[in-house]
Amino acid sequence: MIQTSIITGQQARLASRSNVHTTSTSGLAPGYLQANLIILPSRYASDFRNLCARNPVPCPLIAESETTGCDDAVISHIKTLRGDEILGEGSDLRRDAPRYMVYKDSKLEKSHCSDITAEWTSDHVAFLIGCSYSFEAELTAAGLPPRQLVLGRNVPMYRTTLRLCPSGVFRGGTYVVSMRPYKRRDVETVRNITRRFGATHGEPLDWGWEAVERLGIEDIDGPEWGDAPLDGDGKRAFGEMRGGAEDENEDEDEEIPVFWGCGVTPQEAVMRAGLEGLVMAHAPGHMLVLDARDEDIAG
Amino acid sequence: MIQTSIITGQQARLASRSNVHTTSTSGLAPGYLQANLIILPSRYASDFRNLCARNPVPCPLIAESETTGCDDAVISHIKTLRGDEILGEGSDLRRDAPRYMVYKDSKLEKSHCSDITAEWTSDHVAFLIGCSYSFEAELTAAGLPPRQLVLGRNVPMYRTTLRLCPSGVFRGGTYVVSMRPYKRRDVETVRNITRRFGATHGEPLDWGWEAVERLGIEDIDGPEWGDAPLDGDGKRAFGEMRGGAEDENEDEDEEIPVFWGCGVTPQEAVMRAGLEGLVMAHAPGHMLVLDARDEDIAG
Repeated sequence: MIQTSIITGQQARLASRSNVHTTSTSGLAPGYLQANLIILPSRYASDFRNLCARNPVPCPLIAESETTGCDDAVISHIKTLRGDEILGEGSDLRRDAPRYMVYKDSKLEKSHCSDITAEWTSDHVAFLIGCSYSFEAELTAAGLPPRQLVLGRNVPMYRTTLRLCPSGVFRGGTYVVSMRPYKRRDVETVRNITRRFGATHGEPLDWGWEAVERLGIEDIDGPEWGDAPLDGDGKRAFGEMRGGAEDENEDEDEEIPVFWGCGVTPQEAVMRAGLEGLVMAHAPGHMLVLDARDEDIAG
Repeated sequence: MIQTSIITGQQARLASRSNVHTTSTSGLAPGYLQANLIILPSRYASDFRNLCARNPVPCPLIAESETTGCDDAVISHIKTLRGDEILGEGSDLRRDAPRYMVYKDSKLEKSHCSDITAEWTSDHVAFLIGCSYSFEAELTAAGLPPRQLVLGRNVPMYRTTLRLCPSGVFRGGTYVVSMRPYKRRDVETVRNITRRFGATHGEPLDWGWEAVERLGIEDIDGPEWGDAPLDGDGKRAFGEMRGGAEDENEDEDEEIPVFWGCGVTPQEAVMRAGLEGLVMAHAPGHMLVLDARDEDIAG
């Protein structure tokens, strides 16, 4: 297996650059931070930075291009890390994610291309946003592995009606959330574990079957991104597990949906804003693997 | 008039401490930052700090007690300011707001008392939260004075159904918003002006008559705090101004409600959390005036 030789963030980036690794980065270089990547024309950079500052739970900004047009170094937005600790020397933001998406005037222009060297200009600014992969290892270590990891599936992600705080051109956007099922009795433990990872979405946004309606999620079994959630045996749709009890808070062993902010949120906000020019992003699941480690950002 | 001799933040605090100034701090020491004050038993401090970090628009944390129990110095949460620039030597968090509220086991114990020296213990931590007074002067300078200032009233504040991102014991809370009416044509200017004040709620959360429903506000003429909003002449209820047009976005001269995050939000969240022990806060409108100036926190 190729993955056994990819142990560090740098190795993951080099393997992506040389097209040795071309698929999802889930499970790659365990313990290393992975980031969502969004690349914008510089005139939108200030509004986007402010969008992240106003909505840190779904849009945790880790770092951005050191200067406008800089494709090989970042400045850090994490107090305890320097830019070169997040992304070391010799990196290339245009080639080091396994796959990219390119949007022109807010319309998809290229899907899953291997690099964006032709599209990147001296006017582009790259933003690195935290990803919930960081706390999944910690949940697993605590004996509470996320269901989708156990079943070898992708985490389900949903559009919600929960509105972001607007910022300049970025307005009308809503949260995207990821969901992992847990027993009601484990929710406080799960909250406590993921709370430490403030730079990668932190503790859940909401939980319980009632939260499905509160968040305006139309169909728990039909996520907008990722794979549909299943029961523990991987046989039945998770939504079928919902009890019909009057008092939904009674059964401590019942599995309920637990929702976290999701890094797809800023991408959705960018698409919705009708930006002009070339916007780039990593392809979903094909993250940029960093040199900092999950534990470096845990509070 | 007494107020003419109160020009600096320090003078405002000393006048409050000596009970020379005992009323609202609106208009006091113009140009100096004013802060919402929340004082909690130390076991809740971490969850509260995290609540602010996750919800920076309604809960912009400016500073907190330098150490647990410290009542005369703060550490800064603003990058560009030191703690002693926010609150100078010789301050007393227990006496320097004009009026205080005291809650015991989440029930109101004392209202509008002049100090909390009897209640403060070595286990308390004070938090200073930004206040929208900071951007009102800037709006006025731009020829867009907030309606309530012109009419000599208090800003109307509303409970909403927009949920905060929970943090530990603080869960189920919702945004409180303040509202100022502006013409539709002025909204972008108002957004641009207030955007700079990220440490004091920043740009609006939402705007337009449709936002009233989106935010779950029951009655625009019946705010939960402050005074009811009026038309420009101060004669009619603001809600009566709402046009009945199908397309609500047509008339650029129409006045619409513009909503900002409000510093009452963290107080509401604290009350809702059912905390045990003694919790203290400033009395509404009776803020702690700081040594830093509005311009110091403008981006």
